Amino acid sequence: MVEGGFRAVSRCDELAVQPFSDSPEGLTRTYLSPAYYAAQDKLAQWMAEAGMSVRRDAAMNLIGRYEASAPDAPALIIGSHLDSVRNAGHYDGPLGIMLGIEVVAALSSAGVRMPFAIEVYAFGDEEGSRFPAAMLTSRAVAGTLDPVTLDVADRDGVMLGELVDIAAYPSAKRAPESVLAYLEAHIEQGPVLEAQGLAIGTVTGIAAQLRFEIEVGGTAGHAGTTAMDLRRDAVAGMAAMVLAAESVATAGPADLVATVGVVQVHLGAANVVSGKCSFTLDVRAGVATRRDAAADEILRLFREIANLRDLCLSVRKVHDLPASPCDPALMDLLDKATGAASQTPFRLVSGAGHDAMIMATLCPTAMLFIRCRGGVSHNPAEHVDPADAEVALRVMLGFIEQLGATFDPA
Amino acid sequence: MVEGGFRAVSRCDELAVQPFSDSPEGLTRTYLSPAYYAAQDKLAQWMAEAGMSVRRDAAMNLIGRYEASAPDAPALIIGSHLDSVRNAGHYDGPLGIMLGIEVVAALSSAGVRMPFAIEVYAFGDEEGSRFPAAMLTSRAVAGTLDPVTLDVADRDGVMLGELVDIAAYPSAKRAPESVLAYLEAHIEQGPVLEAQGLAIGTVTGIAAQLRFEIEVGGTAGHAGTTAMDLRRDAVAGMAAMVLAAESVATAGPADLVATVGVVQVHLGAANVVSGKCSFTLDVRAGVATRRDAAADEILRLFREIANLRDLCLSVRKVHDLPASPCDPALMDLLDKATGAASQTPFRLVSGAGHDAMIMATLCPTAMLFIRCRGGVSHNPAEHVDPADAEVALRVMLGFIEQLGATFDPA
Repeated sequence: MVEGGFRAVSRCDELAVQPFSDSPEGLTRTYLSPAYYAAQDKLAQWMAEAGMSVRRDAAMNLIGRYEASAPDAPALIIGSHLDSVRNAGHYDGPLGIMLGIEVVAALSSAGVRMPFAIEVYAFGDEEGSRFPAAMLTSRAVAGTLDPVTLDVADRDGVMLGELVDIAAYPSAKRAPESVLAYLEAHIEQGPVLEAQGLAIGTVTGIAAQLRFEIEVGGTAGHAGTTAMDLRRDAVAGMAAMVLAAESVATAGPADLVATVGVVQVHLGAANVVSGKCSFTLDVRAGVATRRDAAADEILRLFREIANLRDLCLSVRKVHDLPASPCDPALMDLLDKATGAASQTPFRLVSGAGHDAMIMATLCPTAMLFIRCRGGVSHNPAEHVDPADAEVALRVMLGFIEQLGATFDPA
Repeated sequence: MVEGGFRAVSRCDELAVQPFSDSPEGLTRTYLSPAYYAAQDKLAQWMAEAGMSVRRDAAMNLIGRYEASAPDAPALIIGSHLDSVRNAGHYDGPLGIMLGIEVVAALSSAGVRMPFAIEVYAFGDEEGSRFPAAMLTSRAVAGTLDPVTLDVADRDGVMLGELVDIAAYPSAKRAPESVLAYLEAHIEQGPVLEAQGLAIGTVTGIAAQLRFEIEVGGTAGHAGTTAMDLRRDAVAGMAAMVLAAESVATAGPADLVATVGVVQVHLGAANVVSGKCSFTLDVRAGVATRRDAAADEILRLFREIANLRDLCLSVRKVHDLPASPCDPALMDLLDKATGAASQTPFRLVSGAGHDAMIMATLCPTAMLFIRCRGGVSHNPAEHVDPADAEVALRVMLGFIEQLGATFDPA
């Protein structure tokens, strides 16, 4: 085998500069920009060199297809996204596409055809960095896109409909019988694999997410004249709640996380006991029941703290995103392939959203996470060890071999 | 005795509207404004009616003097301030002046002269609501004013020197031998007396105050992908520190207070584990040693929390104001007078600053706090029960009687 994992990483680097970036410095590649099309042209060349036929769908996704051993077989889709956030790293998205191309290149150069086709999807809009919407292109493919969503303009006022035929857009939808499964390789964007000393991990699903806005009301008072036992201090109440949320999440399973990321003290002053403080609470877990139980426990503790401290508490739920579990049978195949590549199988939840969670409505999905240094992502400092990408490539090939052995064309 | 406490409160209400307020709605009376002089004219009339000779000093303080039984005796000064914050309550400042006038009115109508003179000072600038300085006028009287401080302009660009003769200003200084003691009655501006069910309390001193700016540094991370045990969350560190400060102050003596009044999360977002959070810490106690020991303990806990959580900690001291204790012998006299008025003597520290802390450099000082509803001050909702003001007046008269009994003119 050529060391395709190394090439996959270096191709991500190659696409991180102009003309493949919208900006002269750093990588920003937004959906349907000239840099986006330039990157597609380069990808199309690499797909063709790997032995694929290449096409664009109505959502301007680029698709390479490597035929099965028999005609009209359903396809395993290997996908990830080509667009990036502003001032992005090189690997969030493109690495999964490059590894898909390397999978096909390896099979093709070995003269191997599987009983299913393999298609590599370079999705156009996952990040939502151009239009006020995200995962437009995988939603089109999965057939879950509400046409109303396409009536959007970018920050320069350019309508999506000026760039693509939005009437035709939904025709990017794939017929379920044409798709066997979906596999996505992606950098972890978190520190778990690094902490475990592992190159890769099997994703069990995209976490279910709840988000709340919390407001704590007390009584504003003079910091010098209000004795401690007479205070109704909103900041102190907030502090107790932050620690309560943290302790519930820490005591729970590894996939459970709770975060207070925004804190605002209203009319805060150094010499004033706070009368009002608001903060956000984000709770995620691999399955919604676990997330909901944790959120219930956290909110119960918030009420307890508010009661104890004689504070007012207002809780507003602002987001409720369901979990998107990966397919158990496909997870087993990934684990087996991991073992076959002399790696320790390890499962983890994805706290962030990915195209896989959209594709799960169309077909069984699997996700492979690749270690990234320090868990840093959405940042030019994003870094992947090419040796880890090589491990990922071997596991993906092993997964495909396993999938071929279990494939029943009837 | 006439019910002078009730009249004192109603006179405060009388001065809370135009022409005694700068603003058509609500009370704002700034130093040297037309409303300030209008209020002085009214005060001068009440002082004269009470039997005092009235003058202005070079700092534009209004002073009424009630002579002693013998000529050239030193004076007990009863003082408080006539200026107000913007959109103020009626009693913060004026009530102490009105009670001073009532003290003299009571003595005068009873034909009583003390072996010391009594002077009522209506200080002009305590709040610092017009010029970027505070307690200018009591500093002039105490002789602690640096002339450089007088080179100030208000927000309209009017220099203090355009309104008064700043060369003559320091001549407002009193010779120490002309002053026996200083007594100030003031609303508590805190909830302690109300919680104790007491109308008045003896102030032991103005609290010593320390103020810090604290910065906590962690690692920003994705709220979905950063497992709990791998976080270096600046917000969670801040929360633990807020509770540590609170617990040290709560465990300490009643006069010890610690407050986090400002919290700022840098680049805070609901889906981001915070990388940087800053907050203020204000620590006060009746004596500096107690305050310093508490601050040391709080900062030790902050360092411990930072170590445990692998966070960076930066501590910057931004204020260090010494304590200003009241005179122990005068406190005893106030307590005795309190008992004689059938009230329970109770001592408390003033967390806020007052003219008394300036006058303490000139002479022994005493302060009497009067209960205010809910501890609310610097707010139009500020409220004093006239019956409490009546109690305060009786205690002030009792104090003067006690002081006369202990007075040694040699």
